[in-house]
Amino acid sequence: MSTTPAPDNDVRAYVSAHRDGFLGELAEWIRIPSVSADPERAGDVRRSAEWLAAKLRETGFPVAEVWETAGLPAVFAEWRAAEPDAPTVLVYGHHDVQPAARADGWRTEPFEATPSDDGARLYGRGAADDKGQVFFHTLGLKAHLHATGRSAPAVHLKLLIEGEEESGSPNFPALLHERADRLAADTVIVSDTGMWAADTPTVCTGMRGLIDGQIDLYGPDQDIHSGSFGGAVPNPATEAARLAAALHDADGRVAIPGFYDGVVALTDRERELFAELPFDEESWLRTAHSHGAGGEAGYSTLERIWARPTAEVNGIGGGYQGPGGKTIIPSAAQLKLSFRLVAGQDPEKVQQAVRDWVAARIPHGIRHELDFFGATRPCLTPLDDPALQALVRAMSKAFDGAKIRFTREGGSGPAADLQDVLGAPVLFLGISVPSDGWHAPNEKVETDLLMKGAEAAAHLWGELAAGTRTAGGEEVQQ
Amino acid sequence: MSTTPAPDNDVRAYVSAHRDGFLGELAEWIRIPSVSADPERAGDVRRSAEWLAAKLRETGFPVAEVWETAGLPAVFAEWRAAEPDAPTVLVYGHHDVQPAARADGWRTEPFEATPSDDGARLYGRGAADDKGQVFFHTLGLKAHLHATGRSAPAVHLKLLIEGEEESGSPNFPALLHERADRLAADTVIVSDTGMWAADTPTVCTGMRGLIDGQIDLYGPDQDIHSGSFGGAVPNPATEAARLAAALHDADGRVAIPGFYDGVVALTDRERELFAELPFDEESWLRTAHSHGAGGEAGYSTLERIWARPTAEVNGIGGGYQGPGGKTIIPSAAQLKLSFRLVAGQDPEKVQQAVRDWVAARIPHGIRHELDFFGATRPCLTPLDDPALQALVRAMSKAFDGAKIRFTREGGSGPAADLQDVLGAPVLFLGISVPSDGWHAPNEKVETDLLMKGAEAAAHLWGELAAGTRTAGGEEVQQ
Repeated sequence: MSTTPAPDNDVRAYVSAHRDGFLGELAEWIRIPSVSADPERAGDVRRSAEWLAAKLRETGFPVAEVWETAGLPAVFAEWRAAEPDAPTVLVYGHHDVQPAARADGWRTEPFEATPSDDGARLYGRGAADDKGQVFFHTLGLKAHLHATGRSAPAVHLKLLIEGEEESGSPNFPALLHERADRLAADTVIVSDTGMWAADTPTVCTGMRGLIDGQIDLYGPDQDIHSGSFGGAVPNPATEAARLAAALHDADGRVAIPGFYDGVVALTDRERELFAELPFDEESWLRTAHSHGAGGEAGYSTLERIWARPTAEVNGIGGGYQGPGGKTIIPSAAQLKLSFRLVAGQDPEKVQQAVRDWVAARIPHGIRHELDFFGATRPCLTPLDDPALQALVRAMSKAFDGAKIRFTREGGSGPAADLQDVLGAPVLFLGISVPSDGWHAPNEKVETDLLMKGAEAAAHLWGELAAGTRTAGGEEVQQ
Repeated sequence: MSTTPAPDNDVRAYVSAHRDGFLGELAEWIRIPSVSADPERAGDVRRSAEWLAAKLRETGFPVAEVWETAGLPAVFAEWRAAEPDAPTVLVYGHHDVQPAARADGWRTEPFEATPSDDGARLYGRGAADDKGQVFFHTLGLKAHLHATGRSAPAVHLKLLIEGEEESGSPNFPALLHERADRLAADTVIVSDTGMWAADTPTVCTGMRGLIDGQIDLYGPDQDIHSGSFGGAVPNPATEAARLAAALHDADGRVAIPGFYDGVVALTDRERELFAELPFDEESWLRTAHSHGAGGEAGYSTLERIWARPTAEVNGIGGGYQGPGGKTIIPSAAQLKLSFRLVAGQDPEKVQQAVRDWVAARIPHGIRHELDFFGATRPCLTPLDDPALQALVRAMSKAFDGAKIRFTREGGSGPAADLQDVLGAPVLFLGISVPSDGWHAPNEKVETDLLMKGAEAAAHLWGELAAGTRTAGGEEVQQ
């Protein structure tokens, strides 16, 4: 990037000037223990929603509503651009948090917001996931208005901040369907992910999809004696194991016929960009609490977790699992499987492929049932997508012209629901770093990065408004 | 067989004349609820031992002692032949029983002894397993003395009736070792098995051995997220499944190198004899509570359960087994395996083969532990064994000259301990039939078969005394 133009300095100056006030308000929000998993905290989740709606109104949103669901409430806000033909952008985040207790190993009160001595970090549950990353949009929006002299954002801006993300978003798809008209957008910005590292700013371009389910296998009508009958009747625990073992071939590829149908392959450019990231396998293994890396042949660890579909055994059980031995052939066994999907895979088609594969492998004398719990579609934005390029420009401005690299998310989330129900591409604007400790004790956020997030958001609305006109002729930012 | 000689009629007449008295005393014994698995019944198990010792003294045994163990007591009795060079025979059985409660589905009180209306059956816990089959030896011995005019048996007769068989005989090997001198015998007669059917008298010629153990597999130090890490680290549940699935090849043979080393193959004659048994697969499957037969290619169901070694998964567990899904890679998994062994296999060598095989299959990043719970040797008596031929002659006399066929036991039991510690061949004299319902509600014994058991025992001592001299020149009884 070349020199930073003047308005950007206005953004930086505005954000800096309002840093302390912003952090003070974020601390106030963190003190509301909006733990969606704990029924006793339902009142706090509601208080969190109301607090946020009030702050959004204070920020200037003409519309800021608490939306009821069958579970815990979400917050919706809308501020339309002055230009009727401006693009519509929906920001997604969540205001609920993971459970946290001092006894889990927190060095500070999790529902206080405690700055480090040098002020570089703010500790507290939700500091990064996701209150900090939702709240920087308020500062970013004010900086955008200030720096551009606008009285309304350059895009029709909508926010949808859900209250059950940490509980698996059980009511989120229904909410999207019910409110699809009001949520309609050209682009979705998800602010619930992170970057590679503080000195390696990145933009996430996709998430894997997911189907998971359970196979129950039934053999003898009751546990039978392995001496009297062993060797002469099929054993459902053995059959469950055979299914699990047959999931992969010798190269670590999923061996279910049709599984890879439609998979969007990594481009050479994407592989090059992944390979440029400063990946340290030893350090990654520590993060994974694991003692060896391994998987599909021909792919790097990052490619395996970000861009390749997988089959995993989440649970297996059958027969005697107590202490010592019991010489039985069990009457039943169970296998819980999950499949991460990548762009191009259709969850329903993969489910059918799994059904067919299982059915063909069950021997005479074993009955089986197969149930899927759910399906989340994968999402992926191509590197040359104009909205993605706008996001990259905004990030680069916030990070002083740094090269913005690309990551993906191995997990699966509501992003795909947004993409599917709203029919809009999903982009990810997040500034959290791996050391922030999501879901763990001593969650924190880097306060400098929160400011970068606010700056990126401040730049983004103008870039997006301009992006649809200009992106076609620009070079792809790496 | 030719016509039955006169002394046999004396045996039959004696047994018939004492039938009612015998059944009355057996009923008394059944009323003692000697459930070894129930600590609250320990006093009853002791009472059962004392009752039996008293009855054996009444029968004429000069020695009848209650033997203490680290657990529940056994009974030992000895009655020496007049001829010093007579062979020594040790009868094995057990006086403890399985638990039983009316609520389990019993139509009569399990610890009463209730005859059927026609007197053909006696219902009660232990009627067949094993009180009835131990107790017929008292009637048989008296008939033997009466019919031969002897004042002592034709063999040096010893009885060892254990009190913990239904609890896995935890203290039996120690007892055998401690008392090996007093238990020394040329032949062991186990009366704790059965026959093919009431109209198909059979003699069991062997039992399978057993090793069983547990493999623990450890992957990540804690459950990890299948999205963030799935596809890039080894999964211990998958590895447990791969081990279980690799136990057998496509022909159902155990695929562990060295597993079949030394296996004594079925002879053509044995296979012919097995094939002659009136085996009905549908009926057998009902007994097995199973819905399909299958196993090692090239063998019949009877061959598979009686004469071929096996590997079975008794239990498998790892990861999430609750309701619904949980998208994790589990930190650990467990596999419980048992291997039935046949004559010629050395349990310790098979254990080593399993250890080597497992160690070679565990991938980088997975740690494993393998523990064996125990080892029971297989036992098998060749069809031309002189003592076996003596038993066959005794059975044939009891069953009116019927052809005696051969079976084996698929299970594993203390017979092998007797064989190993005492260094004596083990024969099986049992008259129970599959419908007797061992370990099940409404256990019963066929009273006519109890009398046949007593008759066979009465004939056996003379046959065994004569057998060592004459068996070499006799034709194999089929």
